[in-house]
Amino acid sequence: MASGGSLEWRVNVGDGATEVLRPEGSFVGRMVMGVKGFVWGLFVKGWMFLEKAWGIANSEPKKAVHGLKVGLALSIVSVFYYMRPLYEGIGGNAMWAIMTVVVTFESTVGATFYKCVNRVIGTSLAGGLGIGVHWVAAESGDRFEPIILGISLFLLASATTFSRFIPSIKTKFDYGAMIFILTFCLVSISSYRVDKLFELAHTRLTTIAIGTSLCIIVSMLFCPMWAGSQLHSLVFRNLDKLADGLDGCVSEYFKNVDDPEMENENQECHDSKAQSYKCVLNSKASEESMANFARWEPAHGRFGFRHPWKKYLEVGVAMRKCAYCIEALHDCLNSEIKAPNSLKLLLVEPCKALSTSSSKVLKELSIVIKTMKKSTKIDLEVSDMNIAVQELQAAIASFPSTQTANEEHEAATIPPLMELLPLATLVSLLIETASRIEHVVNAVETLANVANFDSEEEKKRSSLDNNDHHVAMRVFPEA
Amino acid sequence: MASGGSLEWRVNVGDGATEVLRPEGSFVGRMVMGVKGFVWGLFVKGWMFLEKAWGIANSEPKKAVHGLKVGLALSIVSVFYYMRPLYEGIGGNAMWAIMTVVVTFESTVGATFYKCVNRVIGTSLAGGLGIGVHWVAAESGDRFEPIILGISLFLLASATTFSRFIPSIKTKFDYGAMIFILTFCLVSISSYRVDKLFELAHTRLTTIAIGTSLCIIVSMLFCPMWAGSQLHSLVFRNLDKLADGLDGCVSEYFKNVDDPEMENENQECHDSKAQSYKCVLNSKASEESMANFARWEPAHGRFGFRHPWKKYLEVGVAMRKCAYCIEALHDCLNSEIKAPNSLKLLLVEPCKALSTSSSKVLKELSIVIKTMKKSTKIDLEVSDMNIAVQELQAAIASFPSTQTANEEHEAATIPPLMELLPLATLVSLLIETASRIEHVVNAVETLANVANFDSEEEKKRSSLDNNDHHVAMRVFPEA
Repeated sequence: MASGGSLEWRVNVGDGATEVLRPEGSFVGRMVMGVKGFVWGLFVKGWMFLEKAWGIANSEPKKAVHGLKVGLALSIVSVFYYMRPLYEGIGGNAMWAIMTVVVTFESTVGATFYKCVNRVIGTSLAGGLGIGVHWVAAESGDRFEPIILGISLFLLASATTFSRFIPSIKTKFDYGAMIFILTFCLVSISSYRVDKLFELAHTRLTTIAIGTSLCIIVSMLFCPMWAGSQLHSLVFRNLDKLADGLDGCVSEYFKNVDDPEMENENQECHDSKAQSYKCVLNSKASEESMANFARWEPAHGRFGFRHPWKKYLEVGVAMRKCAYCIEALHDCLNSEIKAPNSLKLLLVEPCKALSTSSSKVLKELSIVIKTMKKSTKIDLEVSDMNIAVQELQAAIASFPSTQTANEEHEAATIPPLMELLPLATLVSLLIETASRIEHVVNAVETLANVANFDSEEEKKRSSLDNNDHHVAMRVFPEA
Repeated sequence: MASGGSLEWRVNVGDGATEVLRPEGSFVGRMVMGVKGFVWGLFVKGWMFLEKAWGIANSEPKKAVHGLKVGLALSIVSVFYYMRPLYEGIGGNAMWAIMTVVVTFESTVGATFYKCVNRVIGTSLAGGLGIGVHWVAAESGDRFEPIILGISLFLLASATTFSRFIPSIKTKFDYGAMIFILTFCLVSISSYRVDKLFELAHTRLTTIAIGTSLCIIVSMLFCPMWAGSQLHSLVFRNLDKLADGLDGCVSEYFKNVDDPEMENENQECHDSKAQSYKCVLNSKASEESMANFARWEPAHGRFGFRHPWKKYLEVGVAMRKCAYCIEALHDCLNSEIKAPNSLKLLLVEPCKALSTSSSKVLKELSIVIKTMKKSTKIDLEVSDMNIAVQELQAAIASFPSTQTANEEHEAATIPPLMELLPLATLVSLLIETASRIEHVVNAVETLANVANFDSEEEKKRSSLDNNDHHVAMRVFPEA
């Protein structure tokens, strides 16, 4: 392969310019060029795909780790069956173990648990029922057997498929219902005798048990990814993003008021930070699925077995209501009607004070959730925010006279109320945002109470009592 | 079974009251009572579950139909294999056909297509690759065989699992990637000889082909549910809901201004209609998955093969921006600061005119999408809306003097600007909503152009030409 002739030939084909010079006919040349272009195009596409994949793996190494974990689990189960003589090709028992691993291994522990439990329950129930129906059909003679089997299959498959649309089934047993139908079909129409069916059911359950245990062990032991932890960090990160969005929005609006010569550097970076709240608007679906999976997870880290994941959803709902308000705020400020700087100047202080105190509250809430400790500062900051609201209202109340004074030495070309519109909107929406932040505060407080977040007082009490005891409490929270 | 004795015995057990009267000791009695309570509880729960299911089946009969369709497909495939002698119990070839039906039969045609195509592609690719790897491993001797198999399995499973996180793979080939891993594992570690593997691959592909064709035929022939049609109606229904939400919000705000003695009947009904826009806020996920599935669907009804489903998503984005604004509008109007009726009276006319013309535009857009005909009225209605915006701005512009006049004969206890806040917010948000509705109009117009909606002029032209031709065009749109 590394001989001179072969190398020479390759260079000739690889290098289009040389090829064209050869007098072998333009058809071959064009063919080669075409193939070359096609291969090159494929290569470039493949390369771009790999670069994208590499980017994802770099930014979220957990996803690459999940891939490796699946590879590991499959290798283990394959080696296990490869070594054993009972394995006899596709269709043997190994298949069920491998299939279980491929189908139930999800990226979070909760989702893996959900699928494993559903698979075991669905298979057991359907296996039992299927054997029963099979027995009844076999007893009722050759003539009725296919009729009984067909009707029971049709009815159960229809009813179970329909039940997957019912919300309570859908959230908890969607996958189990599918496995139920599958197993029931396989068992009820199989032509085995009933005693052989029992043996079969036994081996199938054993292999599924092996597959599910392996999935659960691998997903929990090697870099476990908990749906609960993901939900937890999603919520506190979203709170931070809301705070940034609110701050960014207000400072963007007033940016040239204080100092019109202010430099615009770091503007883009600041913009992207201010825009990040937008992902809060669409986080409902991912929050709900994470909370759904988190319920299946055992106690881990700082989260107990019955950690109130539903309460995170309530915080999420309150946050989204805030985000809608900030979204409206953001776009109203970009509206066509611009308030003159002279008017803006009058409100810049109270508006900025309110947005700063509001975002402080949000950031404090984010810290409360992040550290899972009740805050002593939060009440103070909420009352700061309320004072800022009152000051803004007071500023508005004293506004007309000031504005009239302004009007006297300015020629009013546009009617004053038109100019006031965006400012009035800003003020209303800021006040509305503050009132919605109070709902977020309430939701977080409920969460903190139900989830028994540490409070400073309790901490002091427990540190007087015994320091080690307190640490133990946090590592193994009461289930 | 229907003999009198047997019937008698059953009644005795079934009827708890008879049982309790017998003097057999209180323990048994309590047991019976306990069992009775448990059974009764189960019965009540089951009954409630059935009632709920019945409610769902009644309100959305398509879901029940889907259940029946799955039952039908499974019955057909089961009967097919039950009749044939080649079927030999679980693990035989029938299993793959049944499994294919259970796993790939989704409620919409598009989702079924997506899963079927993915299943066939994934199985074929992995089968080919698996046979190749199996051959290489078998050729390289007993010593290297398990090593080559293990390493290739680990690497491919890891890489494919990771690739499922890459967006382009995730939206189009998520299921195919899973099937790829599954088939590759099964084939590569099977202990069959290569020539037998070919035979096996052939039968497996055949059974999968039977299963997928059956799924596609049943899902398309019996009451087909098209993801595309669902997306289509979701979008035009959401437009209607937005219009209702906007109208309801504004008329709710001004409800006691014109006629404070107005009756409050039908209030709740009206409220629920006005609140219905809220589901627009969270429709992103379902719109995206429907658009994703709709791309797999063949031409059906009024939709061609390359119907621009992506454009519906753009309409959806524009609609959601509108909905955020209406959400802010809705809650700001319920804020603590109330504008006095005297001030409201001054703006009731232009505000109502704007909200009416805005919701007219939205309703017209809904009709455009519903009937798939370009509207001749839409330009007129958009300019009506813009005139209403200008009139509202003019009303605001003339407001200060009017308000001052009012102030003269009213004792102003609250500073006037505070009272103005909610009204100013209403006005800004209404104007902002109108400008966002224009974005919706643009998105719908792009959709209408790309999807070749009929326009009135074309209709006239074609009706002059040939009426039948026009009908034919609508039934079989150009693909």
